[in-house]
Amino acid sequence: MTSYHIDFEPVGRRGKCPADKCLLDCAHQLGVGILSMCGGHGTCHSCKVQVLSGTVSEPTPHEQEALSPQELKNGWRLACQTYPTSDCKLSVPPQSMTTPQRIQVEGLEVTVAPDPPVRAYQLQLPVSSLSDPRADSERLLETLEQQHQVHCSIIDIDVLRNLSPQLRSWNWQAQASVRDNEVVALSPWSSHKLGLAIDLGTTKIAGYLVDLENGQTFAAKGIMNPQVSYGEDIISRITSATKSPVEAAQIQQLTVTAINQLGVDLCGEVNAKPEEIVEAVVVGNTAMHHLLLRLPVEQLGLSPYVPAIREALDIKARDIGLHIASGAYVHLLPIVAGFVGADHVAMLLATEAWQAEGLTVAIDIGTNTEVSLVSDGKVTSVSCASGPAFEGGHIKCGMRAASGAIERLLLVDDQVEYQTVDGTPPVGLCGSGILDAMAQLYLAGVIDKDGRMKDNHPRMRTRQKQLEFVLVSKDEQDGHPAIVITQQDIRELQLAKAAIRTGIQVLLETNGCSEEEIKQVIIAGAFGSYINVSSAVTIGMLPSLALDCFRQVGNAAGMGAKLALVSRSKRAEAQTVARQVGYIELATAPNFMQTFVQATHIGRYNRGG
Amino acid sequence: MTSYHIDFEPVGRRGKCPADKCLLDCAHQLGVGILSMCGGHGTCHSCKVQVLSGTVSEPTPHEQEALSPQELKNGWRLACQTYPTSDCKLSVPPQSMTTPQRIQVEGLEVTVAPDPPVRAYQLQLPVSSLSDPRADSERLLETLEQQHQVHCSIIDIDVLRNLSPQLRSWNWQAQASVRDNEVVALSPWSSHKLGLAIDLGTTKIAGYLVDLENGQTFAAKGIMNPQVSYGEDIISRITSATKSPVEAAQIQQLTVTAINQLGVDLCGEVNAKPEEIVEAVVVGNTAMHHLLLRLPVEQLGLSPYVPAIREALDIKARDIGLHIASGAYVHLLPIVAGFVGADHVAMLLATEAWQAEGLTVAIDIGTNTEVSLVSDGKVTSVSCASGPAFEGGHIKCGMRAASGAIERLLLVDDQVEYQTVDGTPPVGLCGSGILDAMAQLYLAGVIDKDGRMKDNHPRMRTRQKQLEFVLVSKDEQDGHPAIVITQQDIRELQLAKAAIRTGIQVLLETNGCSEEEIKQVIIAGAFGSYINVSSAVTIGMLPSLALDCFRQVGNAAGMGAKLALVSRSKRAEAQTVARQVGYIELATAPNFMQTFVQATHIGRYNRGG
Repeated sequence: MTSYHIDFEPVGRRGKCPADKCLLDCAHQLGVGILSMCGGHGTCHSCKVQVLSGTVSEPTPHEQEALSPQELKNGWRLACQTYPTSDCKLSVPPQSMTTPQRIQVEGLEVTVAPDPPVRAYQLQLPVSSLSDPRADSERLLETLEQQHQVHCSIIDIDVLRNLSPQLRSWNWQAQASVRDNEVVALSPWSSHKLGLAIDLGTTKIAGYLVDLENGQTFAAKGIMNPQVSYGEDIISRITSATKSPVEAAQIQQLTVTAINQLGVDLCGEVNAKPEEIVEAVVVGNTAMHHLLLRLPVEQLGLSPYVPAIREALDIKARDIGLHIASGAYVHLLPIVAGFVGADHVAMLLATEAWQAEGLTVAIDIGTNTEVSLVSDGKVTSVSCASGPAFEGGHIKCGMRAASGAIERLLLVDDQVEYQTVDGTPPVGLCGSGILDAMAQLYLAGVIDKDGRMKDNHPRMRTRQKQLEFVLVSKDEQDGHPAIVITQQDIRELQLAKAAIRTGIQVLLETNGCSEEEIKQVIIAGAFGSYINVSSAVTIGMLPSLALDCFRQVGNAAGMGAKLALVSRSKRAEAQTVARQVGYIELATAPNFMQTFVQATHIGRYNRGG
Repeated sequence: MTSYHIDFEPVGRRGKCPADKCLLDCAHQLGVGILSMCGGHGTCHSCKVQVLSGTVSEPTPHEQEALSPQELKNGWRLACQTYPTSDCKLSVPPQSMTTPQRIQVEGLEVTVAPDPPVRAYQLQLPVSSLSDPRADSERLLETLEQQHQVHCSIIDIDVLRNLSPQLRSWNWQAQASVRDNEVVALSPWSSHKLGLAIDLGTTKIAGYLVDLENGQTFAAKGIMNPQVSYGEDIISRITSATKSPVEAAQIQQLTVTAINQLGVDLCGEVNAKPEEIVEAVVVGNTAMHHLLLRLPVEQLGLSPYVPAIREALDIKARDIGLHIASGAYVHLLPIVAGFVGADHVAMLLATEAWQAEGLTVAIDIGTNTEVSLVSDGKVTSVSCASGPAFEGGHIKCGMRAASGAIERLLLVDDQVEYQTVDGTPPVGLCGSGILDAMAQLYLAGVIDKDGRMKDNHPRMRTRQKQLEFVLVSKDEQDGHPAIVITQQDIRELQLAKAAIRTGIQVLLETNGCSEEEIKQVIIAGAFGSYINVSSAVTIGMLPSLALDCFRQVGNAAGMGAKLALVSRSKRAEAQTVARQVGYIELATAPNFMQTFVQATHIGRYNRGG
């Protein structure tokens, strides 16, 4: 049997696959998680991939229906319908990936000429003797000057603490990592020159191990933020941290311990040691940023929601307990406001949205959703309390995107087609599944514009005096509890989507723009990047624009952190961005309440009400 | 009975004393410890004081014998012979003080125009509101600029951690302490602006609490260095610290805990809090410096005795566990070499010896003795391993300068007159007493030029096959063990004084100078400042010069630390001094061994041998 070499990017899985397997099967054989709700029948359109090189079979009728001629021309295909006819290289977009792989993968890869804040130099030092009894520090600094024309005047105290024995045990050969005017690390010759970028989210933490010299990502990994034990949302965390300094210290400790473990895991993948990480960058929303630094958060939770600091910070990693090279710094990107944090700045940086040409909306959906509108070089931002519904919170059968969560969903007549995380039997609904469900129920006429459920569908039933729609019945899954969407769930979702839409509308109105003028909507973040955009448009959460106006960019905040890690000019740019963004306190906007009420309606947003 | 107001300086004790009490009795009444070996009979000459203002009785014959006409003209008197005839202000020189008070008092008070590295500013901040939602850090920095034209861009992370609640609880009034470009402390309005100067000696730690704004010393205190539990001399400490990182950390911890307690005690004297200390300066020999910073010391104990660093250092106090204001720095003066430390630099700075006009010797006597020779603007230094004999170590009846230690001693025919610390019954000999004993025995012909004891005195006896001289017999002190000086003690003392004298001779020879050309000998340090200089000259430890060539300056290292604390120009000067000092490794000097052997002889040093 003929077989071909198939290469799946950006996950970087590759191997030989037989020619009679479709690309979906090839993916599964190589352990690449591609979505497939319809079971490979070409009807759910969730397994879109792009052929980057090599040849494949001709498009099937299913594909001609699912994909525009332009998409087909650009190599887009449905993996379940396509067979390789040569070695192939394929790109799997985040929205086609199953959840476990998504959080390990970046949404977009922006390249920048590396211009790292820390550079490493190999030194051969003259041996100390009675005729050359210079102090070890002078010997080091003078050799740096002589052998590399690098002038430094400071050696970090922790580096100094090991300098003398290290120089002697390494036979007077060493690699010095220099940041500005300071030696921040000393290591043996040919050690790695690593940087660590961290996107510290309320729910998840994403880490990237990067080669500082060429900007290449060595390893990436996502973990849960252990702070969830102090509450799922930001306000609970603030409340906990405000209770006592001890509690604040525990929360900080918990977070940094998790990041340290992430560092160990990432280094393990490339046989490196955390001490070889000579610079770190952390981005996060304002509360995560403050909690990590053990900055006060009480005032963040009270009007006027003032951050302790907005400027970018460079602090010694040890001052927050981060275990990387002894004298290394952690850089924190600047913040815009109490509820528009460094993660949003990083997103604007990575997507370059802040200097987009046409009217652009950049949106980071989460428990708290940040929205920026870019209009003629002016950036205005708001923060919307969208709540935990899209993360499965306050939803009867809601859950996080873990094994068995329904992540995509389609109503075909009376049947529900779905895809679960890991393909295991369904146990609940995660955010993207919830969004699909709401859209599908609205399209099927089960819920009306006001969100009222109607008892007009064979899957509708009443439980505890409340209408609910049965997505998966007890019978359909071997007697396990049914998975349903209730009237109350719909109400929660209406509030969540209204919050987001209100943010967009307030920005448009403040800038005197209309929905139709929007050229581009950039959607970033774990949840927003993997949703079915058409579901979000259907329910009116996102503006009603052609689907090709939307760009789902994955973890753009993490990407921004990586850019800032390897490029000093990108750090400077982040400062410019943060200073340039105007912040609007949503609750004080004119017509806020009317806009919000209007935005709770399902379907296309109608300014008139 | 008439009484007068008597003021004793620099201890700062004052009060009413009856006119029929001599100044010695006045001193004792007010708790000022002035030496008195002869019991107030005018024969031991140890109670010299200087009358600064007011009138006193005419000089007695004893005084006319003890004091030169020039000294009398300058107000010098024997306290036991002098009676006040008006209110008086007196200066008690360190060498006339009993030990417990000595270590609390500075030897010389050099004034400098304060130019402190940290300045405090009172701020009235605008209240945060929805219309002024600036981050608290911006609010602070911008107010500094507006109200004081002070530009800062950094707020220490620990200051940031408390900024938001503090500003609110202080009703938006605060005092910001600024260092260069950084806010290092925040406190309520009208907090103290304190600095802490520490002289970290091998045996003792002296601390000075200083008003940074006017340079005035608020409080001073001396304590023992708790490191002595790891060995009395530097090499034992180095050996302990080299055993394991745990032991090094324990030594560091022990030291910094003692300094923290010293800070609490000093602050307690002026109702201040250690958090009000916004800058610290530490001086110490190279080993003390390195141990405090937990820098490696192993290489310090091995040829070529290389320090980890010689340059001045500014590090966060928290990085060494020092409990002062949260973001404050500790400044460490520069080092000359492995065995000529920052304390010697501080001494050269305080005494201004480094720019003395005539040929000058500046000497710091201790377990390790540093000597500098200043000749035509050139400074050369050596370090001599003088050993612990002058601190009572390796001497049969030797002890530290604690209660009951004989600190001054005079042989009058067959009788021994002595003064003990605290005036309690004698239990041993401390350094200055040992030095006096050696000189008195030499003058009495009991020991010869080679240090050999002769059995020609009624107080000589033989014990355990060794000759010894009984200073205080069992009978003379109610059956307590006799206090003696043995032949072995004399040998130890010969080695100690030879080490010091060799240092001086090598410097003179290297610079092509002779003893006779010396214009000035500056003697600093706890021991050196309180010795009877004529005893040191008698045995040949110090050059045979007129006594008015000698300046005993007390804890000049501590004084130098204070200068560096309040004056940035003095810090810069210390850098210049350290760079300018040429270091000679004594053991590699030509004729080292011959010089040393010659220097072991007692009496005037004779180059010919």
